[in-house]
Amino acid sequence: MLRYENNPIVKPGDVQPSLKELKVVCAFNAGAVKFKNQILLLLRVAETAKDAEADYITFPIIEHTNEGPKVKLKSIKKGSPDLDDSDPRMLIYQGQPYLTTLSHLRLARSDDGRQFSVNPTPAMLPQADLEAFGLEDPRITHIDGKYYITHTAVSPAGIATALASTDDFKNFGRHGLIFAPENRDVVIFPEKIEGKYMAIHRPYPKHIGTPGMWLGRSEDLLHWGEYQKIMDVREDSWDCVRIGAGAVPLRTPKGWLEIYHGVDKDNRYCLGAVLLDGDNPSKILARSKEPILTPEAPYELKGLLGNVVFTCGVVELKDELLIYYGAADSVTALAITTVEEIINSLEPI
Amino acid sequence: MLRYENNPIVKPGDVQPSLKELKVVCAFNAGAVKFKNQILLLLRVAETAKDAEADYITFPIIEHTNEGPKVKLKSIKKGSPDLDDSDPRMLIYQGQPYLTTLSHLRLARSDDGRQFSVNPTPAMLPQADLEAFGLEDPRITHIDGKYYITHTAVSPAGIATALASTDDFKNFGRHGLIFAPENRDVVIFPEKIEGKYMAIHRPYPKHIGTPGMWLGRSEDLLHWGEYQKIMDVREDSWDCVRIGAGAVPLRTPKGWLEIYHGVDKDNRYCLGAVLLDGDNPSKILARSKEPILTPEAPYELKGLLGNVVFTCGVVELKDELLIYYGAADSVTALAITTVEEIINSLEPI
Repeated sequence: MLRYENNPIVKPGDVQPSLKELKVVCAFNAGAVKFKNQILLLLRVAETAKDAEADYITFPIIEHTNEGPKVKLKSIKKGSPDLDDSDPRMLIYQGQPYLTTLSHLRLARSDDGRQFSVNPTPAMLPQADLEAFGLEDPRITHIDGKYYITHTAVSPAGIATALASTDDFKNFGRHGLIFAPENRDVVIFPEKIEGKYMAIHRPYPKHIGTPGMWLGRSEDLLHWGEYQKIMDVREDSWDCVRIGAGAVPLRTPKGWLEIYHGVDKDNRYCLGAVLLDGDNPSKILARSKEPILTPEAPYELKGLLGNVVFTCGVVELKDELLIYYGAADSVTALAITTVEEIINSLEPI
Repeated sequence: MLRYENNPIVKPGDVQPSLKELKVVCAFNAGAVKFKNQILLLLRVAETAKDAEADYITFPIIEHTNEGPKVKLKSIKKGSPDLDDSDPRMLIYQGQPYLTTLSHLRLARSDDGRQFSVNPTPAMLPQADLEAFGLEDPRITHIDGKYYITHTAVSPAGIATALASTDDFKNFGRHGLIFAPENRDVVIFPEKIEGKYMAIHRPYPKHIGTPGMWLGRSEDLLHWGEYQKIMDVREDSWDCVRIGAGAVPLRTPKGWLEIYHGVDKDNRYCLGAVLLDGDNPSKILARSKEPILTPEAPYELKGLLGNVVFTCGVVELKDELLIYYGAADSVTALAITTVEEIINSLEPI
């Protein structure tokens, strides 16, 4: 696994804010896909208030107005006794959680998969209600000429997953929530298996259970069921606290290759891989004993949340596997490897 | 609302254990339905070990064996430093949650809706894997001659909801999980609305959001989506901590009548009601300002978990509405009222 020499490939400074009141603080966790001889990234762009009074934390949320959903700035005085701002990504004020940034999805294009130009305007903006706190972490699955995008939809109601679709990456259809809270890290397989669409998802149980990876099945991509847990966290391992799917599964001659993330007790996010049976992805054939990528580079160690590598998309280009990944919850980076190298590194189960 | 004079109508002593090693400790939270001129209850029967050494907590779970899934007794020494048994329903040992009882579903029959005879053997037993900790809280929906049963499936993987079906209440088809963890209190509407099946469900979010009531839609009852939150907890109210659907919604001339439970800060479970628009159940027309039933009778105040009334089923019989409810997580009781009385008690929204 090789880090691309010009990493990071997209930084917040490369992205124009969606509104003049906002500034871009993160451009990361991009879905990736080949489209018309180009590589497209669908970036998660996180913004916060451009100008904030020094004594206040000011952040954007989406609210209903007479003219439709609009960004509103909310301010909370620093040091308030009913404020918990210990997590850089989230704050809790008067018992209500808020996110410190508001994310939308933004397209970037490349001819070589390395140098990207970022569109000046958003591809998909969050709506009010179930997206009031933003759209996050898109994954793009190409099925029969159509591109399906799963993305996290965050709101005061919870962290859920919604589906969108597009033919041209200009117009996006929105299809509502496909997984109820709390459920994210949803990747749809690029073909039907035994007559049904399949997805990996990561429910986060409240009272019983660990945050592991589950399968679901669907006839129409909109309604899901037949849930089964396929993969769990591992004690005393780099993936002992929680795991979640990363990129859309890749069909290889040996089975489905899934790059996933694992989190350890120090809240370090690493990437690993798992090989699922080609005909029955509930069967795990091999899994990374050690991570295939750990946060080591400066841009992976420091950012909005340091010590994080997190992928939402990979692309096979010629003989290379290009792994696009968010680093330190702030920038987008590229790691270059091959499918063979990853599969050879796995430990058979 | 009148409590039936011979409450409780089913007690643990009325139910034969499913195995000689077990004793029945609760018979409660029954689904209810009219079937062939009878009223059927599908009881949740909770069992624990019959004989346990005094120094040990001993409880049953389901495990795989060569002969299929079997009940195994697990024992934990009382007072172990890594044991938390502060909740009478659940214990946590070495970081792993277990339930103190193992539940299955048992049929009881009545001609008048008041006097029930309980079948000597189970109707549905938990399987291993996703039901290893039991089947709970069934709700029965009659659609086109078939009876669909949603029930909680509890296991080390989480608290989820599964679907079963029957034509005759002798043979039950099992259809797997329809809601991923953590999600329970699922009731399916008895008819399609705008061409789709609908259900109320209660996801329990981990990081953001409150445990409120959501709608879901389905084309086939097996795969669900189009999720939207319709009803939330209310501050400083009897339903301020969490709410969940109770009985299957009842079509009335004024809309869908749903009896639900609400929990307050003292962990008191009460029953209330909500009227949903007949054509668009996401629209709330009226809701109980005060509970329609609060735990007051001795059998509601004391039991495995005292201060609880909780319904999984109501039946309309002549002009009466019979509300079957679990009391103190131990016995089954009956409250008698009318649809009109409940609707008149609601506060318009």
